[in-house]
Amino acid sequence: MKFFIFTLFLNFTLFNFTNLYSQQLNSVVEKHRETAISIKNLAMSDPHGYQLLEKLVEFGPRLSGSENLINAEKFLLELLQNYGFDTVYYQNVEAPYWVRGNTEKLNIISPYIEKKHLTIRSLGNSVGTNDEEINAPVILFESFDQLEEAKESVKGKIVFFNNKYDQTLLNTFEGYSKAVRYRVDGAWRAAKYGAKAVLIRSVTTSFDNVPHTGTLRYIDTIPKIPGAALGVQDAEFLASLIQNSGEVVLSLNLSCEMKGLTTVKNIIAEIRGSSKPDEIVLVGGHIDSWDLGDGSHDDGGGCMQSIDVLRIFKVLDIKPARTIRCVLFANEENGLRGALDYGKNSKVMGENHIAAIESDAGVFTPRGFKAKTDSLTLIKLQSFLPLLQLTGIEWVKPGGGGADINQIPDVRAYIGYSPDEQRYFDLHHSDNDTFDKVNLREMQLGTAAMAILTFLISEEGLD
Amino acid sequence: MKFFIFTLFLNFTLFNFTNLYSQQLNSVVEKHRETAISIKNLAMSDPHGYQLLEKLVEFGPRLSGSENLINAEKFLLELLQNYGFDTVYYQNVEAPYWVRGNTEKLNIISPYIEKKHLTIRSLGNSVGTNDEEINAPVILFESFDQLEEAKESVKGKIVFFNNKYDQTLLNTFEGYSKAVRYRVDGAWRAAKYGAKAVLIRSVTTSFDNVPHTGTLRYIDTIPKIPGAALGVQDAEFLASLIQNSGEVVLSLNLSCEMKGLTTVKNIIAEIRGSSKPDEIVLVGGHIDSWDLGDGSHDDGGGCMQSIDVLRIFKVLDIKPARTIRCVLFANEENGLRGALDYGKNSKVMGENHIAAIESDAGVFTPRGFKAKTDSLTLIKLQSFLPLLQLTGIEWVKPGGGGADINQIPDVRAYIGYSPDEQRYFDLHHSDNDTFDKVNLREMQLGTAAMAILTFLISEEGLD
Repeated sequence: MKFFIFTLFLNFTLFNFTNLYSQQLNSVVEKHRETAISIKNLAMSDPHGYQLLEKLVEFGPRLSGSENLINAEKFLLELLQNYGFDTVYYQNVEAPYWVRGNTEKLNIISPYIEKKHLTIRSLGNSVGTNDEEINAPVILFESFDQLEEAKESVKGKIVFFNNKYDQTLLNTFEGYSKAVRYRVDGAWRAAKYGAKAVLIRSVTTSFDNVPHTGTLRYIDTIPKIPGAALGVQDAEFLASLIQNSGEVVLSLNLSCEMKGLTTVKNIIAEIRGSSKPDEIVLVGGHIDSWDLGDGSHDDGGGCMQSIDVLRIFKVLDIKPARTIRCVLFANEENGLRGALDYGKNSKVMGENHIAAIESDAGVFTPRGFKAKTDSLTLIKLQSFLPLLQLTGIEWVKPGGGGADINQIPDVRAYIGYSPDEQRYFDLHHSDNDTFDKVNLREMQLGTAAMAILTFLISEEGLD
Repeated sequence: MKFFIFTLFLNFTLFNFTNLYSQQLNSVVEKHRETAISIKNLAMSDPHGYQLLEKLVEFGPRLSGSENLINAEKFLLELLQNYGFDTVYYQNVEAPYWVRGNTEKLNIISPYIEKKHLTIRSLGNSVGTNDEEINAPVILFESFDQLEEAKESVKGKIVFFNNKYDQTLLNTFEGYSKAVRYRVDGAWRAAKYGAKAVLIRSVTTSFDNVPHTGTLRYIDTIPKIPGAALGVQDAEFLASLIQNSGEVVLSLNLSCEMKGLTTVKNIIAEIRGSSKPDEIVLVGGHIDSWDLGDGSHDDGGGCMQSIDVLRIFKVLDIKPARTIRCVLFANEENGLRGALDYGKNSKVMGENHIAAIESDAGVFTPRGFKAKTDSLTLIKLQSFLPLLQLTGIEWVKPGGGGADINQIPDVRAYIGYSPDEQRYFDLHHSDNDTFDKVNLREMQLGTAAMAILTFLISEEGLD
């Protein structure tokens, strides 16, 4: 009976607490509804960010060290200066300077067959073949386990990891993180057993023959061998040739090269907070892109959405309580040096980021936000859902933040913008990441979602 | 105090009831989890439906009366017969037979300007101009209200409704239903005041110059005048010319024509229920399409998803409790005659459809299901969410069913598959509705969502 009474009491208390809390949340939502609608309506009726993305990508892809990137940085700095934000500045960053060069050839030497040439792209940061061809038999593995089992047979060979992307997974980032190990760690693992070079099946959801690049990693104590990605169709072809023909000899020629370091820029703009200027709400993306396609989704679009958040505040004459800072990070793709430097610098300056929002998963239709934070802050963020839903956002879930923002120490909430992810790995890091794949409304809705979230955090804080 | 005790009691009862109910639901979900995962994995790893869609659209667009449609019907019947379903049959349907013809010309006669030709497409079911040109001044309206205000000035003119699609709306179907009135009712409303022809700004979210067709409606007592849609860019051009130049005279020539009636087919396939064969769970789309593009999204994709639901049951050897019926409806676009006949026939036969699921909103990434049903059935459908979420479905909401299934009387739940709708009206009823706009994974996930829902309704019923 005591327990019964206690349960009743608990239940009653819970009921009232919940009621009170939801009343409080409702009043927050109602207080900001009008502004949220204005933000959404402006974002949806004005193609400004989309048009600027088109201009940005006209400079071409923006790998660290490239002339394209220098032009893009100049364009972005001038653009931000012209909006009349409170502060616009940049931070110089030393970053790896890698070039692809003109030669990327993979030919079948034996057996003699009509189709000789296979479509490849060097992996980012890979060494080249030193103006020589590597001629060697190829050995096929589908996993690192298979490599370990056959490690005695690897010496002097080209190792080909034909690990298939798991298409049955709903979450394409999960499929990516499972498959990308072969791109990142394939080279040193194969080199450990004496391999001369490594090939991978492109890490992609697509079935075309367009190769997808991305970084590989070397280990200091193990020789650096060249690495390249095959288009999926050619990966299937090569795998079946190996399975049917016994020994297959390949010739590989890559002119890519790590040139050392280059200076790139984090570009930063701020609207200073009116009542709590020392509390920063960061919104950002990364300027650099791989040297294939034009980097519209990864991550020119994320940059333009972040800039547009600040522009929308200006146009609507919103004076945020906290400081809204747009950070366009340098060198995410092959070094993360922009974010690492930004993080170190921020710590030295004793800056207080209460939230950091990154758009670096493509500019597709909004689905949600993934937040790396404590559970009470997560609940606070979730209480904003009734206004985020104006833009098609369905959820705020625990999750990963973003590659750049995660380098900043002690942020209360690391928040990754999560658009629909079904098409992202069709084009990610490939010739197919181009402006024609960006849909205006999808991009605008994402901008609106980010701007509303930024606004709510700025006004309500996260306590 | 009495009230307090009562509240406590109510609260306690509610708490326990909710608990009990959620336990029950959990057990349903757990019972079917394994099968749902098998359905999803098969749908995602097998591009069968996508490849068949590519074959279907190779016949070209499939307007009622066209040779393309006859070929497509033959292809679909043979396809279904080869799967070994329990029943495959068709119903002949008399449907409007409308042809576009070769002439669709709109020229600016005066003022004299360099750009003379405007890009148009006849509206579906429109009369033509009888091998003549209609030469007349054009009068611009943005709404029916404006027409009513200026009705005295309409006689002898071409009326141009330049109603802009409201881009600020999240829900593109809402924007469509607001704007489409000018396409559907513009002709008779203008003709009532003596207009010679009607032009509309294409009903689309896109900013290109590709016109979007679709039906117009005539009223028996009002003269039938020709109607055509302008591409959005040319609509903007013409509107600004009218606003800046005063009188603008146009010449319109359309060879389109209503030819009478033609015979088309509803195509039907079934897997008979093992324990409740008289209870039907229908899944379907419509075969016909407008004569522009190839009708991949509207609605070849929906047909192929529906067929694939049954195929997945066969491949996985699922013997459904209730009858699963795939219906490929005829003549949705310019008459709805397939669905109307199916509905009448079903009533005569005393058939019992417990649910009808339609995919006719494009084959984009899954978001939810919209159900027209009573509130208890809605809750039942919502209880399936933990398994529907395997495919990216986020919600089951009250909503509209589908144009075809809504013609069937007395269905317990009319359910519309609701993929993401941001891109649909970019391509809907236009040259841009082509197979290259279909994404494999998005289509597969939709198929999986429909198959899991069909399976759950079949096994659990809706009581």
